[in-house]
Parts: sequence; C-alpha cells; structure tokens
Amino acid sequence: MKIKINSHATTVKPSIIREMKVLADSYKNVIDFTLGEPHISHHTYETIHEGLHQRIMRSPIGYSHQYGVLELREAIAEYCQTHYNQDYDPKSEIVVTTGVSEPISAVLKTILEEGDEVIIFSPSFTLYNSNVKMYGGKVVLYDMIANEMKVKSDVLSELITPKTKAILVNSPCNPTGKVFSKEDNEAIYECIKDHPIFVISDEIYREIVFDGVECPSLSDYQDLRDRMFILNGVSKSFAMTGWRIGYVLGPKEYIQIVAVVHQNFVASASTISQYATLEALKHPELTKNICSLYERNRNYVYEQLKPYFKQVVLPEGAFYLYLDASNYGLSSYEFAIELLKEQRVAVVPSVAFEAQDSGYVRLSYCCDFEVLKEGIARIQNFRKSL
Amino acid sequence: MKIKINSHATTVKPSIIREMKVLADSYKNVIDFTLGEPHISHHTYETIHEGLHQRIMRSPIGYSHQYGVLELREAIAEYCQTHYNQDYDPKSEIVVTTGVSEPISAVLKTILEEGDEVIIFSPSFTLYNSNVKMYGGKVVLYDMIANEMKVKSDVLSELITPKTKAILVNSPCNPTGKVFSKEDNEAIYECIKDHPIFVISDEIYREIVFDGVECPSLSDYQDLRDRMFILNGVSKSFAMTGWRIGYVLGPKEYIQIVAVVHQNFVASASTISQYATLEALKHPELTKNICSLYERNRNYVYEQLKPYFKQVVLPEGAFYLYLDASNYGLSSYEFAIELLKEQRVAVVPSVAFEAQDSGYVRLSYCCDFEVLKEGIARIQNFRKSL
Repeated sequence: MKIKINSHATTVKPSIIREMKVLADSYKNVIDFTLGEPHISHHTYETIHEGLHQRIMRSPIGYSHQYGVLELREAIAEYCQTHYNQDYDPKSEIVVTTGVSEPISAVLKTILEEGDEVIIFSPSFTLYNSNVKMYGGKVVLYDMIANEMKVKSDVLSELITPKTKAILVNSPCNPTGKVFSKEDNEAIYECIKDHPIFVISDEIYREIVFDGVECPSLSDYQDLRDRMFILNGVSKSFAMTGWRIGYVLGPKEYIQIVAVVHQNFVASASTISQYATLEALKHPELTKNICSLYERNRNYVYEQLKPYFKQVVLPEGAFYLYLDASNYGLSSYEFAIELLKEQRVAVVPSVAFEAQDSGYVRLSYCCDFEVLKEGIARIQNFRKSL
Repeated sequence: MKIKINSHATTVKPSIIREMKVLADSYKNVIDFTLGEPHISHHTYETIHEGLHQRIMRSPIGYSHQYGVLELREAIAEYCQTHYNQDYDPKSEIVVTTGVSEPISAVLKTILEEGDEVIIFSPSFTLYNSNVKMYGGKVVLYDMIANEMKVKSDVLSELITPKTKAILVNSPCNPTGKVFSKEDNEAIYECIKDHPIFVISDEIYREIVFDGVECPSLSDYQDLRDRMFILNGVSKSFAMTGWRIGYVLGPKEYIQIVAVVHQNFVASASTISQYATLEALKHPELTKNICSLYERNRNYVYEQLKPYFKQVVLPEGAFYLYLDASNYGLSSYEFAIELLKEQRVAVVPSVAFEAQDSGYVRLSYCCDFEVLKEGIARIQNFRKSL
C-alpha cells in the first residue's frame, strides 16, 4: 500500500559525500580522500584507553542526564572558557549531543517555521542545506568564491529579508578551509545586529588552524550572546568521529528548548562516548598533534596540486583542499568519477557543497603522509596517459 | 533580542520521567524506581569487554556507514529472522540508530504532515506523544485502562479518520507491561488493513516476557510489511541503555528516506557502541539472565503491593508496574512527591504517560532484588506513620 509521506522529507537527498565513499569502497586499492576522518583515531583510543576503562568500572553506564554527564559539561564549560573566552553555565546552557550533526538538526528544528530563510556561506557542509530543507526552511546562499572568499557587507545585506531567521557560519570552513577573519565577522555583525536573526556558529574545526593564525568567532560580540548557538565537539580536533560526541552552547532560554528537541531525537548521547570525551579533554596534546600533522599535509598538497588545477583555495584551517578542476573539461561529478576509475583516487564533487556544479572538488587530506603522497602522485598522473 | 521560534517546539515539554529522576537525585538515600535502567549494565560490559577491546584494536573507529556497520546490520538481520521470523535485507532495510528513541523521531518526521493523526494506546511512553506534537501531528488516544487492557475493534475503528497516518503499538508496553495478544493484534489488523495507515511497532521490550508467554507482533501479518516500521534495540534486553544503540526495520522504499532523516539528525550512530552491540549479540544469555531476574522481581513486587493500591496491572512483560494510587486521596503527581519526601522512594506519576492524571504511578522494578525489597517495604510504610 502506497502512503503519502512528509513532503520535505521526500525532497531531502542522501549525502553525496557518503555516496562517493560507498562508491570508493566498491573499488580495490583506492586512496580515499572523501571523508573528514582524521587517521589517528586509534592513537586517541590508545591514549584514553586506560582512563576510560577505569571510569567505566567505577561509574554507571546507563542513560546520562538528557543534557549530558554533568562532569563532562563542566569540563566543556572550562575548555570553552579557557580556549575561547566563551562563558556558559554547564547546568543550563550546554547540551552534549550525538556528534555536531545533531545540534545542527536540533537547533534548526527549534527555530525554523515553514518558509523561514537561513543564510549560509557557500560552499558549505552538506547537512546544513538538507536540514534547513527538511524543516521547511529556505536556504539563501552567500557565494564566497564569487566574492574573493570575503564577506562583503553590501552583498550580505542584500540577502537579508523579513523572513531571515538565522545566519550560519562555519569557520574554519568545510570544504574550503577558509577562516573567517575579524573583518569578515565585523561585516556579518554589522549586517545582522539590528535584525531578529539567530547566529549559528559551527566551530568544529576551530582548533585546526595553520600558520599560527587565530580563529576569531562571532561569540566575541557579547551582544549576540542572547541569540547565538555555538556548535563544537571532539570529532575533528581529537580524532574521535566514531564516538559521536558534540555539544551546543547557547542562552538558557533557547537551550532548554533545544534540549527537549534533543531528548525527542535521541533521549541522551552515548554515555560510554561521553566518558571517552572526558578522558580525551585531559589530553590537549592530541589536538596539537593533529594540527602539526595536518599543517604539513596542507603545505604539501597545496604546493603539489596548485599547478594542476585552475584554482586552488589555500586552506587556513580544517583539513580539506577545494580545487577547481574545470580545466579538465569535466563537470566536478564527472571528474570525481573519472579520477576514481582511472587512478583509484576518491574525492568529493562540488555538488555536495554547492547549489550548482562549480567544477570544484574537495580533497580531504587528514590521512597519513605516505598515503597522501601516493594519492597526490596519482592525481598528478590523471589524464597523462590518455 | 527576543526571536520567535518554531511553534511546535515551544509546546513540547521535557520528559516528566527525567524531571522525577533529577528530583530523586536531589535527595539522599533514595530508592530510585524512576528510569527503565536494568541494573546489570556493568555485567554486560564485563561480558563483552575483551571482545570489544580486540575489535577496536583491529577495526577503524571512524564514522560508520550511515545505515550502520554492515556486519552489525547482518547480525541484526539474522537475530530478527531467527527470533521473530522478521525478514529484512541488511543492506537496504535496516538502519542502526542512537537508541530506539531516534527511530521514533526519524520515522515520525518521515511520515507526518501538519495535522496528521497518530493513534497511540494510552498509557504510553512519553516520547511518542512529544515527537508527534513536535512534527505538527495530533495524538489520538485509545484508552487501554478504560477498555480492560484489551483492543476492541469497535472502539478502535471509531478513532480512525481520513487524517490517520499511523498507529503505534508498544508490546510489551511501557508503562503497564501489557503484552498485546493475538486477539489484540487481530483487532488492530482488521481495523487498519483497508486504510492507508502506517504501523509503527516498538518492540524494545519484546525479549522480556514472563510465565513462558510468547509476544506476538503485527509483523506476523505479511501484508502489513510494506507499510510497517519495526523498532528495536539492545538497551533493555541486553542492559545497554547507556550505549544508545537501536535499529529500525522497514520496507526499502521508506527506509531509504528514514535513513536520510537519520543522517540529517546524527550522521551515524556511535561506532564504538555498534561494536559493543555486535559483541553483545554473541551473548544471548544476557537476555535470558534479565528475563529470569525481572520475573522474580515482578512476582515479588506485584504480590507485595497489590493490597496497598486500588488497582495494579499484572505485567506480562517489560519491567514496570503500573499502580492506581488514587486510594491515597492524592493526584499521581502529589503521590510521587509525597512518597519521595516521606519515604525516599521515587516513582513516576501517570502524567508522564497519559493525557490526564489518572492517579496511577509507574514503578520500574529492573533493580537489584535487595534494593527492591527495601523500596517495597518503604512504600508499604507510606502514610502509616501519619
């Protein structure tokens, strides 16, 4: 029997990143640059293993509080205070979630009414767009590439309408590695400060910045605090993607509703994973390790691939390279498929991150350096034999 | 700055179960019968620990496939085939989720349009009602207690309207322990078979049945297969609540959309927890252990408390006792508060499970037997000293 389902759910498509990953897995001997999956996850586990084991033996492993294990919330509050000068009450303004994906969904569910608009800086992470659509919202794109990777207040202010409910910033950015500068943030602040617009700041890559650069945040503007959600977690900076622990910080008034949505989604985050996160936060060297590993990778991959592509965005943070492959005369999707077939290298086409195919592809370089070298050599050989 | 948020999100309230738990934790020396938290979770961990550790050392602990680790999906498919004669393709008809809470939310998000009705058998688990409301649906209650704990087709058929999108069955039931009999299921089947109505069968307590009773399922009706979602997981039957692993089975056509919603919610379930689940499924003795422990508890608590309450539903499964405390002349909420204050025993008032306060309270007896005995003695003493 055929039954009509939710109209928004039917329009939301599976992630193309995952589709490329599954396709890559169907070939042998593939160098896989699809997912943002730091390769040192075993190292993290080995580092936290003993502490985690002892924790499990002395603490219950049942449901945690719906906001998360209080001791973890306190550790997160201290971490965010120390590292980012973000001051949030662990009892009422922090919710521990299933990765940073969950608060994207929970916050958007909390704030969006049908037809509300969300401004997103394009290219952007897949799940922003699909979540906005899933809740009946409309994505309004600010095109970073057409604007020399800068936020221009005259361009941005044109996008704001009475329907604008939120603006979403992801800095450092997936997939470009762009770090929003103080000037960029100032432009955003000036455009929105007098409008009733929520700010969603996805800071999951905030620890991973290069060249000694600091990553500023819109949380530096104290008068945005009462309408700002900060998303973060340990997936990237502590190489803990598979543990699925993120968190959302925000003003109590709204966080208490996000917490109810979170409870309706999943009841509470994995308690085991929360204990692991508590252990990981005792090891800041894990993050430093990731930064230095991936800065070396970034330098190598950028220098090596620049001559082969029409345009390459120099990443200031995160661990992705965004490459304009249109000089190969293929759509980004065709390029990704051909590269996989011919050289057994998997990347993600721009259709995963943009409304239209811009010809760009994303390469995730958070892998082992030797693997990276082999993959880059293969890309350099692409089409040479034709 | 005050900004208007989603109208449905604002109406959804936090779980009263959790509220009672937090209140209970604020007292000293409390016997806590609030949560459905099997007390042998450490035993499970000890049982699976060595296998889990070895698994982690040889397998990556990054993101799993969005549907879940394939090996786990295969194990789930085999488990459901062997135990329940439920035949689902592990590649396209099973999604591993963050507990069984997540598929409640994901399935309802997938199917509900604004104003759609969902028939729920009252009393029922808190998150059904709140999730239906969160997605703009309307809860239509079939009152089990007013109908002698039976499904009557004349009563049920009156509830079906052109707006009915789904019927939700939870057997064994939280909070009553009611097992839906073949006759109950037949009545449901007859009422819905000719209407375009989805069936959601939450079978999380299916393993926990007493007196050698079998728990039938609406999945026994093969012609419902193309519009049925089966929810299950390891939280209760393997005492793994804190690991947060559930799953949803359903026809490929709809499951692929549920999987996208799931991806938008959380990307994928905790990989560590999925590995733990794989290990647990190798130990069916864990479930048998739970059944025999809680059958003894059930017998004790039912016999001991029957004389003290106006009405007690004899549980055929799960691990809750639903007690009509109205003979104490208090609302269920007042009774729960007074019992906590006077005797330091925490239970959950019926307002967590019903639209109105019926005077009932839920007692979760999945605790250690000695703790149970002490708690029961305290309840028997309630008001005696006044």
